[in-house]
Formats: sequence, C-alpha cells, structure tokens
Amino acid sequence: MQKGKEPANGPSDGATPKAAVGRLSLYLRHLEALQRAGQETISSTQLGRALEITDAQVRKDLTYFGQFGYPGVGYRVQELRDALRALFGTNRTWQVALVGAGNLGRALLGYRGFRSHGFAIGAVFDSDPKLHGKHLHGVEVYDVARLPELARTLGLALAVLAVPAESAQSAADIIVDAGIVGILNFAPVQLRVPDVVAVVSVDLGLQLEQLAFLVNQRTATSTADSPSTP
Amino acid sequence: MQKGKEPANGPSDGATPKAAVGRLSLYLRHLEALQRAGQETISSTQLGRALEITDAQVRKDLTYFGQFGYPGVGYRVQELRDALRALFGTNRTWQVALVGAGNLGRALLGYRGFRSHGFAIGAVFDSDPKLHGKHLHGVEVYDVARLPELARTLGLALAVLAVPAESAQSAADIIVDAGIVGILNFAPVQLRVPDVVAVVSVDLGLQLEQLAFLVNQRTATSTADSPSTP
Repeated sequence: MQKGKEPANGPSDGATPKAAVGRLSLYLRHLEALQRAGQETISSTQLGRALEITDAQVRKDLTYFGQFGYPGVGYRVQELRDALRALFGTNRTWQVALVGAGNLGRALLGYRGFRSHGFAIGAVFDSDPKLHGKHLHGVEVYDVARLPELARTLGLALAVLAVPAESAQSAADIIVDAGIVGILNFAPVQLRVPDVVAVVSVDLGLQLEQLAFLVNQRTATSTADSPSTP
Repeated sequence: MQKGKEPANGPSDGATPKAAVGRLSLYLRHLEALQRAGQETISSTQLGRALEITDAQVRKDLTYFGQFGYPGVGYRVQELRDALRALFGTNRTWQVALVGAGNLGRALLGYRGFRSHGFAIGAVFDSDPKLHGKHLHGVEVYDVARLPELARTLGLALAVLAVPAESAQSAADIIVDAGIVGILNFAPVQLRVPDVVAVVSVDLGLQLEQLAFLVNQRTATSTADSPSTP
C-alpha cells in the first residue's frame, strides 16, 4: 500500500515486494525481543504465530533473503537477527538530517525509537535564522542552505522532512541536491524526486482513517449480532 | 503487517484483511482526486494502474465491499467514493480526543490532514495543571481526569495518544474507561486494551527502517550494475 503513495518513484524495480519488507521489520522486532529473553532458536511456526501469518509465508520470506532454517532446530535467533540487521543497514548507525524544527521536528528529536533502531539525528535544519546555532535535544540547528555542505562532512545519509506542506517540495529539492537518497516525509504532499531517491511517506490522516474503519466495522458487527435484529 | 503489532487485539474477526483496508484508503484518495478533476467513471484497469496492483485485485477488493462496475462504463467515481466514505465513516466528522499536549500533540493539532479526512480534534487532555483551561490551535486543554465526562458530552469517539512511552498504558486505561473504542497510538509501546478497542500504532522507527532498507537495496543494485564488478 505504500506504493500507491509514491507515484514519483515508480515501482521498486520488482526486487522486493513492499509488504515483504514490512514483514521483515516485524521479524526483526520479534527476534530482538527473543534475543533479549535469551531464546536461541525459533521455528517458522512460532515466528508465523507471533506475526499472525502462515509458517509457509515465513519460510518463503526468509528463503527469499537467503536465510534457511536448520532441520530439527529451526532458525538461530542471533544469526537471523544479524542477517536482517545487515539487510536494513541497521547493523550500523545511520546519520539522519532533520529538516524542520517546529513542533513535529522537536517531537521527533525527543523520540527514543529512532536511536534504538540504529538512527541518530546528526543535524537539524530550519529556515528560521533565530534558531541557527541553537541546540535542541543536544543537536545543533543550521540554516537549510548549509545542508549540502553538512551532509558531506557529517555523513548524513537520510533526511526526515518535518516542514509544513507548502515548504515540503522546496525542502525536498535541497535534500536531493545535497545527495541524500532517502526521505521520510511527514508533510501531507506527494514529493517529486528523482528515481534514485527513496521516499517513505507517513500519512497520519490515512492512519486515523484506518482506525475509523476498524471501529466502524466492529460497531456494525455488534449491531448485526444483536438479538433485536429480526 | 499492522496485525503483528497489535497482539492485544487479536485477529480482526477474519472479517477484512488489513492489507485490503489499506488499499481501500488508497482507492478513496484516488477517487477524491478524480472527483476534483471532474472525471465521472474509471475502469478497474485504470484504478489498478494508479495503485500499482492488478485489475483483478481491484475487482476482488471492490466486490468484497458490494461494489460492482457497470459493463462498458467501469465504476462511477462519485458512487464509489461515497460508498467508501460510508465504509470508513468519514461521510461524517469524527470527534477526536487528543491525549498529550507536548510537542507531538501540538504538531498533530496543527496537522491539516486530519480535518480534510473527516476528523476534528474536539478536546485536548494533559496531566500538566498549568495547561488546563488554555487553548491550543483554538482547542481547550483539560485535565485527563475529565476525559470520561467530556467523551460523553462532546461525543469523542476516537483518541490520539501522544504521550511519552512511560505514560502510555495508564493514559490508554483512562481512554478505555471513558468508553472510547479506537486509539491511534504514537507511543513506542504495545498497549494492553480489551478486544472491543481498536488500536492503530504509528511506529516511526519502523518507518525509518523501511526507508533505510529501500536505500540499502538501491545502493546494492547500483553496485551490482557497475561495470567494475567482474
């Protein structure tokens, strides 16, 4: 479903279905939890149950990425976790540029889920001169014009775009010019970027809509079950 | 893939696969754009192309929801849009409780994508007494203790949970006690809620991880394509 939101990027070369990528994230989450709990091996059936998918789907997903279970053992938790981390590139820390130091940008700076997943916000960029040189959550705020220079010197590989809708495209253009090839976009607009740049959009209105659908469906189900229905 | 993140909720009664719900949101987005552009009908092939899925999948999805195309015509844009809006319940405005008036909460208050999708934040709740009675983006901030009372009088049907991880479960308990049956959760924790309550979690670390995967994959592909590889 991400695909439809990124018309500018075209299909992802047919290499990896995005739904499978989404499942890989969930495998990794689960394996990290198992690792913390000290569990050493896991079967495809157990992995499937945790993710509410079939064990056949688990085996297909993992075979696709060159991971095979051991007969009578299943998958080795640490080995599979390390392989998935390498796939995601989260076996190292990615340096991330945060573009936009408004409420959303500040909320993201304080978000602990980034660091624990292998992402560090290395610099903040904002067009407001009053913020330049200030530190937010220990990270310095720079003029957006300095993004190309700092992307090089600080090794910023990804950008989080947290600016208002009307500034999003021009900010994305600067990010692309800086040679950054991945954008996490929070602005409710579709960005036009070259094919080499990956965009993942977080559409908060869509998330709320999904919730409304689930609530609607449950309400409809409980009404249908009511004995007052003839 | 949402399923695996909501173990407390169990499977969604087998009624609607969540991936299909995700596609319905994208159909609705596309139909709204067509409606604005004045297009009156659309074929399953065109809809499929827009969402990068097969026309057979489009027909299957829409038949499932009781929508059938007209021979030689396709789907009527307005009719299909209205049917989807009714399914999502976004043919009316949902009143939403925002719990948490920190940076993330304030960013969400200013987010225009909610209102345009049929959601209005009717009240803000925060534990900080200094904020009580204040207005943020025109919406009053109340003590969290008043949530049950105001959920009734203001008709708050959904809640957006934007509090720190350590306060998320206790805030969710209050939301559930208030009779609210849908929670959009931004805290990086898995909430324990009764089966009747729907939870959609926005895991921002996971979104960034998906982006890193795409960037990693493209980098690997371009390396493999390089003529320097023997």
